[in-house]
Amino acid sequence: MKKLDKTLNILIIGLGLLGGSYAMSLKKQGYKVSAITKDQSTVDYALKNGIVDYATTDVDETLIKNSNLIIFALYPHIFKEWIKQYGNIISEDTVITDVTGVKGTVVYEIQSLLKNGVEFISAHPMAGREASGVENSSDEVFKGANYIVVPTEKNTENAKQLCRDLGYTLGFADISELTPQKHDEMIAFLSQLTHCIAVSLMCASDDPDLEHYTGDSFRDLTRIANINDEMWSELFLANKTALLKEMDSYRTAFNKLYNCIVTNDRDGMREMMKLSTARRKRFEKRI
Amino acid sequence: MKKLDKTLNILIIGLGLLGGSYAMSLKKQGYKVSAITKDQSTVDYALKNGIVDYATTDVDETLIKNSNLIIFALYPHIFKEWIKQYGNIISEDTVITDVTGVKGTVVYEIQSLLKNGVEFISAHPMAGREASGVENSSDEVFKGANYIVVPTEKNTENAKQLCRDLGYTLGFADISELTPQKHDEMIAFLSQLTHCIAVSLMCASDDPDLEHYTGDSFRDLTRIANINDEMWSELFLANKTALLKEMDSYRTAFNKLYNCIVTNDRDGMREMMKLSTARRKRFEKRI
Repeated sequence: MKKLDKTLNILIIGLGLLGGSYAMSLKKQGYKVSAITKDQSTVDYALKNGIVDYATTDVDETLIKNSNLIIFALYPHIFKEWIKQYGNIISEDTVITDVTGVKGTVVYEIQSLLKNGVEFISAHPMAGREASGVENSSDEVFKGANYIVVPTEKNTENAKQLCRDLGYTLGFADISELTPQKHDEMIAFLSQLTHCIAVSLMCASDDPDLEHYTGDSFRDLTRIANINDEMWSELFLANKTALLKEMDSYRTAFNKLYNCIVTNDRDGMREMMKLSTARRKRFEKRI
Repeated sequence: MKKLDKTLNILIIGLGLLGGSYAMSLKKQGYKVSAITKDQSTVDYALKNGIVDYATTDVDETLIKNSNLIIFALYPHIFKEWIKQYGNIISEDTVITDVTGVKGTVVYEIQSLLKNGVEFISAHPMAGREASGVENSSDEVFKGANYIVVPTEKNTENAKQLCRDLGYTLGFADISELTPQKHDEMIAFLSQLTHCIAVSLMCASDDPDLEHYTGDSFRDLTRIANINDEMWSELFLANKTALLKEMDSYRTAFNKLYNCIVTNDRDGMREMMKLSTARRKRFEKRI
């Protein structure tokens, strides 16, 4: 098994926002980065802007065989399809990793599809933007952000270390490790629920004049209401049980606050606000 | 009635975050700004940092009598108490305005308490920070933000114009006008509901490790979960009817999304996300 160094041939499959940001960061630091992606326009953009050393829309067998580290930045179902169709091309002793936003319904299945000698170590970079596509890529998004390595009992220490090293190299500030199940619970609360909230809020009023009166609180809260519906609807359903549980917990808290207002329970309200303020202080970004 | 010019004696009552930010901006631009505020430490800070020309903790009758424009930046109930106790000191031909976050339970009452010749024109600057106190003041917060003038039938064109001029002078980008009732409905949705959401979300999980895994979506959504419980619990109850109505609309949308997930209704989910995305595009700040 290899270490993360500049002799590695790194291949990124899927040059969207995240794939492109990985490529940009790694290439800038002198790593050898190639990419396979579906649209020729993405290939052209990435080459023109020096985001990768080489890119193609072909499933290029030689390129895949010669890669030592493959990073998949695809939607979950496309990732699985790709491995089913082409996984056998990947050479032994290759490590693959990913950026997929759900793990339980992905990691075990991918690991079971791979041949012996090819190790899949899953990771989730907690960075993104309310935009998609390679042209919105930026290696800045990783700075100060969190990165979660999500191993199973099949993973080796060596691959976990390689995956952590990748996170540090990309510039993440806090690298942690979770099981797929714990990851999915965490993400249901921290990421999926927040997107549910923003979308619901944006759908709750059809007043056409709101933007003249809004302040930053509404703007910040709904930044993610600008959402990739294809990707997020897939992620929500792929993590349904955990997400519904977190939605329930949140509804309970919201209803509690609602009832405080109904009953003029100012102390109850202030208690929730004090708890909220104390907890929120832990979440500032460490840059 | 006067115009907003540099001959006016401007008095700010309450040098908190907003009062301090008004003072800072006006004084920098060459206006004559005095302040009355409750703590000597605030007076000291404001004078030392050149935020005002003069400040005192006394209810200085001469200062008040000589003021042509008085800006109240107090909690609603303190604002009302102040006017009841000291309103008669204010000279005829003085215009007073405010920054109060609710209007229906404030504006009519204040107007009825004032003597003839003193005109109260209410306004709501849609700018703030998740911090309080004069030491967090900044005239930057107004840039690109919205400012709402909230007149009643008692107000004159002249005072409305003075109030709008104040908004432009402070640097607001979009100045609009609403009735107190419409203002309170708007604010219930855009500001109070968002704070309810952030507080509820922060109260919904007691997991002590969340901050290691979070991304920007959760950070942005909960920025306002760091909340002044004294002020916001007062504002919520002062606008109870409108707020509960908006909380209901939001719960309905959230429950609709919840049910889409329960029933694997991916099309229903994507329809909400598309609506959300289209609407969100209107809300970008215009700087």
